[in-house]
Amino acid sequence: MATVTLIEYKVASAEVRAVYDDIMATRKTDRINNFWKALAHHPPTLRRTWESVKEVMAPGALDPLTKEMVYLAVSASNGCDYCIASHTASARRQGMSDEMLGELMAVVGMANETNRLANGYQIEIDPMFLSPSS
Amino acid sequence: MATVTLIEYKVASAEVRAVYDDIMATRKTDRINNFWKALAHHPPTLRRTWESVKEVMAPGALDPLTKEMVYLAVSASNGCDYCIASHTASARRQGMSDEMLGELMAVVGMANETNRLANGYQIEIDPMFLSPSS
Amino acid sequence: MATVTLIEYKVASAEVRAVYDDIMATRKTDRINNFWKALAHHPPTLRRTWESVKEVMAPGALDPLTKEMVYLAVSASNGCDYCIASHTASARRQGMSDEMLGELMAVVGMANETNRLANGYQIEIDPMFLSPSS
Amino acid sequence: MATVTLIEYKVASAEVRAVYDDIMATRKTDRINNFWKALAHHPPTLRRTWESVKEVMAPGALDPLTKEMVYLAVSASNGCDYCIASHTASARRQGMSDEMLGELMAVVGMANETNRLANGYQIEIDPMFLSPSS
Amino acid sequence: MATVTLIEYKVASAEVRAVYDDIMATRKTDRINNFWKALAHHPPTLRRTWESVKEVMAPGALDPLTKEMVYLAVSASNGCDYCIASHTASARRQGMSDEMLGELMAVVGMANETNRLANGYQIEIDPMFLSPSS
Amino acid sequence: MATVTLIEYKVASAEVRAVYDDIMATRKTDRINNFWKALAHHPPTLRRTWESVKEVMAPGALDPLTKEMVYLAVSASNGCDYCIASHTASARRQGMSDEMLGELMAVVGMANETNRLANGYQIEIDPMFLSPSS
Repeated sequence: MATVTLIEYKVASAEVRAVYDDIMATRKTDRINNFWKALAHHPPTLRRTWESVKEVMAPGALDPLTKEMVYLAVSASNGCDYCIASHTASARRQGMSDEMLGELMAVVGMANETNRLANGYQIEIDPMFLSPSS
Repeated sequence: MATVTLIEYKVASAEVRAVYDDIMATRKTDRINNFWKALAHHPPTLRRTWESVKEVMAPGALDPLTKEMVYLAVSASNGCDYCIASHTASARRQGMSDEMLGELMAVVGMANETNRLANGYQIEIDPMFLSPSS
Repeated sequence: MATVTLIEYKVASAEVRAVYDDIMATRKTDRINNFWKALAHHPPTLRRTWESVKEVMAPGALDPLTKEMVYLAVSASNGCDYCIASHTASARRQGMSDEMLGELMAVVGMANETNRLANGYQIEIDPMFLSPSS
Repeated sequence: MATVTLIEYKVASAEVRAVYDDIMATRKTDRINNFWKALAHHPPTLRRTWESVKEVMAPGALDPLTKEMVYLAVSASNGCDYCIASHTASARRQGMSDEMLGELMAVVGMANETNRLANGYQIEIDPMFLSPSS
Repeated sequence: MATVTLIEYKVASAEVRAVYDDIMATRKTDRINNFWKALAHHPPTLRRTWESVKEVMAPGALDPLTKEMVYLAVSASNGCDYCIASHTASARRQGMSDEMLGELMAVVGMANETNRLANGYQIEIDPMFLSPSS
Repeated sequence: MATVTLIEYKVASAEVRAVYDDIMATRKTDRINNFWKALAHHPPTLRRTWESVKEVMAPGALDPLTKEMVYLAVSASNGCDYCIASHTASARRQGMSDEMLGELMAVVGMANETNRLANGYQIEIDPMFLSPSS
């Protein structure tokens, strides 16, 4: 159970409602997730986090599906249940198939394994990897 | 400095050489990274890890560039210097531009931030996220 | 559900009761949290952990509220649900307001984001940061 | 060594220089840390990260020294060498004494220990901790 | 709740059943854990993960109980609830007593504490630790 | 480079020397590692940490070699370079062979992989794992 009260739209301040309205308009939905309702207890964090997420997840050199899968990969590595659940759903909406999810988690698992092998043996970085833009 | 001796090709056993040969043939290169030279001190781990990486990173429902970027995203979250260096180089070889790297790290940073906000407030998962294949 | 049986006061050994008594006296309460009841299945860990926590969290160069907020910040970063819940409650008892919690989590989120940007780009430490007591 | 080229002021674009100027004015210094020089390879990330850090670290319900110590506590838990070095220096500039650093790290260490004991035993959260604003 | 459908034996493909059969034969049991039922939605991951776990956890230079306790120690550090529950059960089946579990968690807790002290102070590695096979 | 000054024996206070003397006597050595020299800048942390490590790592239901390998497994998962280096050396002194190290790291790698698969798919814990002392 959340350690702060979730702020529903109908009791929200004008400042919070403005963010909620932008979230719903941007995402073409009429609901607000618990994540934003919890952040709303501290309006500056709600606003800043939403604006950052909106900017970072917009289409660019990477497409929205790739961004959602990267978000899910990080969340799975960090063990954030909320973010895993919400970004698995978001990635599916963007077109992630079961096969793609399967391959994504396989890469996540393998990276977590080899990260610890490389650290565990304190392996020196090959000089060829050490030039920027290499 | 690695906690085990790196095994060079010329002093490697036949078992280790067979893996090295497959790595070089698969990756169309004539060199072996320190990562594999360190794992070679325990041949079953070298063989199993290489076969797993080869299978997981092969083209499938996700393309090799996407897989490399996911690998890099996880390695950056885990703080594995070796893997960050090697997979940044691999992703660039697969076509990752500076712009793509910039967006990738922006997503990684944002995911790490919101993962802790969701955990830190113990936010309950919205029921709509909780059905498989939703 | 805990993987060990929680030890209630009435069935506890004299060794465990002595620690429970000190916890209740120090914290001016008549109840023992599940955390201590679980540790009690291994009395040396109960005793050592309690004595360490008691010493570390006592007022010193840092006041108890600052210490509780640091504890919560670390627990949020590590994703420990139990510790987040218990230390949010402790920090509130020490005087943490909603506004302070909001700012605390904002710092925790930002630190987690920039930690991964610094690691993800393998940024060299500026020489000026490298002298002790600088 | 960083995986991207560090952008020096004299070769920076107008967009990047505007951020650098604000960093130097806000922090009353004439130098830019490597962290910002690396982010500058992706100007939107430089701008957004700086604006977020500037907002989050400004004095509020928590004073700047407390915020710097929380930042350091999180960075130490995550093992981010760059951030540990830079925020130890920042905290010292804000007035953190050796004694305060010693107590801070003691809390960080203890939190990391008990986080794993609570997780490792899968201890259930006490009902009294589960009400918001409790 | 899992983000993929758990695959029961009776509806499983021949490929998946072959792995399930090997799991049950190897472990001398007639049930399949949820972990494998979830991986089964992506058969290559099911097969590869099972074959790797089977090889890694087999008796060798380390006995099965030691391997289970190491698995549990890592899972407790990472905060993986599923793995903590399943490997605590497995370790108990291999002979782990309450006393051994208590000492194991004490080491896990202490390692997590000193890991952060060493990182938090950025302590240089003593030269004597830096030679392989030292 | 450490963020605090390392305290050498010859300039140490009586309080610090007493701990150093006990470390050297207990470990039958005439040198003090950098870890303790850094902690010595805050004597209460030096004393408490040493007494805890001494108690936790003493022979008990688990032998010293098993404890050192668990310590190394956790340190490798957490990516603590200092602790990996020092505990690899300690485990070797206790009798860990190259073969044992190879198996240990294989388990560490596999646990880190499956931890993320279990978390990434949000797999429910099998009811049979949920009874204490099961």
